[in-house]
Amino acid sequence: MPYFDAASSAPLHPVARQALQASLDEGWADPARLYREGRRARLLLDAAREAAAEAVGCRPDELVFTPSGTHAIHLGISGALAGRRRVGRHLVVSAVEHSSVLHAGGALRDDGGAVTEVPVDRSGAVSPDAYAAALREDTALACLQSANHEVGTEQPVAPVAEACRAVGVPLLVDAAQSLGWRPVEGAWSLLTASAHKWGGPAGVGLLAVRKGVRFAHQGPADERESGRSAGFENIPAIVAAAASLRAVRMEAAAEAVRLRALVDRIRASVPELVPDVEVVGDPVRRLPHLVTFSCLYVDGEVLLHELDRAGFSVSSGSSCTSGTLTPSHVLRAMGVLSEGNVRVSLPMGTGEEEVERFLAVLPGVVAGVRERLGAPSSASFAASFAGSPSGSGEDEDASVVVDALGKLCPIPVIELAKIFGDVPVGGTVTVLSDDEAARLDIPAWCEMRGQEFVGERGAGRGVGYVVRRVS
Amino acid sequence: MPYFDAASSAPLHPVARQALQASLDEGWADPARLYREGRRARLLLDAAREAAAEAVGCRPDELVFTPSGTHAIHLGISGALAGRRRVGRHLVVSAVEHSSVLHAGGALRDDGGAVTEVPVDRSGAVSPDAYAAALREDTALACLQSANHEVGTEQPVAPVAEACRAVGVPLLVDAAQSLGWRPVEGAWSLLTASAHKWGGPAGVGLLAVRKGVRFAHQGPADERESGRSAGFENIPAIVAAAASLRAVRMEAAAEAVRLRALVDRIRASVPELVPDVEVVGDPVRRLPHLVTFSCLYVDGEVLLHELDRAGFSVSSGSSCTSGTLTPSHVLRAMGVLSEGNVRVSLPMGTGEEEVERFLAVLPGVVAGVRERLGAPSSASFAASFAGSPSGSGEDEDASVVVDALGKLCPIPVIELAKIFGDVPVGGTVTVLSDDEAARLDIPAWCEMRGQEFVGERGAGRGVGYVVRRVS
Repeated sequence: MPYFDAASSAPLHPVARQALQASLDEGWADPARLYREGRRARLLLDAAREAAAEAVGCRPDELVFTPSGTHAIHLGISGALAGRRRVGRHLVVSAVEHSSVLHAGGALRDDGGAVTEVPVDRSGAVSPDAYAAALREDTALACLQSANHEVGTEQPVAPVAEACRAVGVPLLVDAAQSLGWRPVEGAWSLLTASAHKWGGPAGVGLLAVRKGVRFAHQGPADERESGRSAGFENIPAIVAAAASLRAVRMEAAAEAVRLRALVDRIRASVPELVPDVEVVGDPVRRLPHLVTFSCLYVDGEVLLHELDRAGFSVSSGSSCTSGTLTPSHVLRAMGVLSEGNVRVSLPMGTGEEEVERFLAVLPGVVAGVRERLGAPSSASFAASFAGSPSGSGEDEDASVVVDALGKLCPIPVIELAKIFGDVPVGGTVTVLSDDEAARLDIPAWCEMRGQEFVGERGAGRGVGYVVRRVS
Repeated sequence: MPYFDAASSAPLHPVARQALQASLDEGWADPARLYREGRRARLLLDAAREAAAEAVGCRPDELVFTPSGTHAIHLGISGALAGRRRVGRHLVVSAVEHSSVLHAGGALRDDGGAVTEVPVDRSGAVSPDAYAAALREDTALACLQSANHEVGTEQPVAPVAEACRAVGVPLLVDAAQSLGWRPVEGAWSLLTASAHKWGGPAGVGLLAVRKGVRFAHQGPADERESGRSAGFENIPAIVAAAASLRAVRMEAAAEAVRLRALVDRIRASVPELVPDVEVVGDPVRRLPHLVTFSCLYVDGEVLLHELDRAGFSVSSGSSCTSGTLTPSHVLRAMGVLSEGNVRVSLPMGTGEEEVERFLAVLPGVVAGVRERLGAPSSASFAASFAGSPSGSGEDEDASVVVDALGKLCPIPVIELAKIFGDVPVGGTVTVLSDDEAARLDIPAWCEMRGQEFVGERGAGRGVGYVVRRVS
């Protein structure tokens, strides 16, 4: 039963399991105590810190363990902001950071600070120049992920770090998705990661703060972990995290080549096998194991459910699979299609045959979902175009309104596609919709179909999305 | 090799180990995902929450898991304070709470709020009347531990909860030391605990917030654990925590009787076997497994080191064993001797023979430490009294000054004791000391010896502690 959602959480690596079990007997005592059980626990903790620091590329005394990657990010951002409070209260982040970074930014805003979100291109990457331009005199901290968790695109960390260094702003790199593969390049100031993303256990995050970076821990005082992460240390999990990081790194170079080829196979095959698909994210500068694509006229939640029934565990940034009814902020920032979104992230060790099985199953699953939704097929779409009145010349005044109010993704786009063939070239269709996903998916549909997205019009309780037929 | 420091961290219970290992295969995925691995993880998490809630005595939807007991306390206090911010920013705590509670109070103070510490009696307990008197119109939250972590004294939680309820103030009970033994009685509003204290794994705390209690999570938003505890859930550890809580509860009643008898044996024997010892904490209203005593003229760190060499792992609230050079705030609040302090907390399953062995070893270890320090023996002390000039009548003007500046606990008290026999009844000794422990230990020595502590006098860079001989 293939599990293809390593980017959410990787199955426990065998080395992590061994290390965890082995250290349950030695790692339960308080490492601050001087008796033998405490000294043993301290030895394990110190050794784990050395191993993790080596993998991160920092000094052991620059690294603390936190209870999760989210804690590492919250503690790192709040501590770095407080350490440079005199400089100002401005935070720079990319628009596609993990929600824990954006929520830390939200907390800063609620507290009177300012946040700039640097936009990304259609591949999901920031431009180093745009990032550098966002830095201000009152910027206390900048954050950039090493690679995006939803689409796999690698960020230009090294040039952004250089730009930050040039103006004296510390850069925090969220390396959650990439640290198992390799160290982060560039002159970062703070780095965060999460063990369960590389096959370590849950309950362990890393926060590295380079010497010389101003840092003031926020929250009640606590003497654990150099005063930077409160609470009794979870030593067996920390030992397992460090041991598995070392283990996956030993396999990483070869495994990256292997999985990159499997992902290339998916990237190339899905658009051939499934009509009306957009593969997103940078095809080259990307994580080796992750690929994301979106399928027109497909309900993401139903698609995931059907793939689960077929034995494949994947995730989705479609609005219909989240509790919020809004599409993933990453897809939104990229301006790409969000409906029928599927993220495939292969755990280390994934076999070629599992990927081939996925490619064999996917087309039928997508077709089934589309059929039940009454979605237009690519063939019928082309046919309707061929027989449409557009052949007789342009008619700029022709205008059709589709009322999709109260209907959720992907219905508004399906309604648009169904009627589009009836509109003459030059005419417009206005889709009335109160679904947040339409704002992203109707322009994305236009992009995919080579039609013109004219814009949004206020339209009572919904929005009117105006599309002009140009071919 | 007996480990007698269960109050710091208990060895992993066999049920915790089994549950942890069993759930490593099923509990690593994201419980928010809808595919089978996610659903399995969610089932484990839900079942663990039900089991833990039953043991706590609350509804499952009132309970969240946190990364540690410290996190539970920090999150509980900050959330409850924020929920009642309109009422005011006053916090009531006992003077002997765990440092995580006091540090949360410190954070409130730093942020402009007010904290009242309710004093305790010599046994370590608050008086319900004194606690009730500390509640004000602007009191947002009150905190009281179920039992003290250093001396084992149980607090009057039920009457304090009643007093809080009468004026509409929520009470947070830190049940870290007692939850493995039994549920907390009384109408508490919030409750916190820590799994590694009852034999569960590290990495799991509990925070229960009764329905109807105003609560506003502080820190960046996060959807995990009802928005009350951020970060990816550590499900294998949570499962192990819940399973072991249920397991220890099944053994608790019988084990409490057995360990209570062993602790009674220690309480009765230590003063018989070791001269100049003060056993502290309530002899009856106490945790079943914990006893604390302090030995005059003994350096706590050396004592712990010698006991460790003899195979016994215990802890100490003496100043000389902490990094801060101040004695435990608990012993200070109780006004009891802090030098040569030893806390013995027996893990479940401790055998009678281990306790007997401890009682056999302790007198020699203490005598050895005292001998090396040149401490006066009880016998020589009595002899010096018999042969002292005091027999010839009172001499109120006689006054001796002992310069113990620059000398650390227990030297100032030893210097006092050495010279005391030379002072006539009615005369005084002034001990000059710059050691924080002297402030506690010289009055405690007077109490133990039946002599009069006159008070402190300013004396240049130290303090003069004035003692009058009355017998």
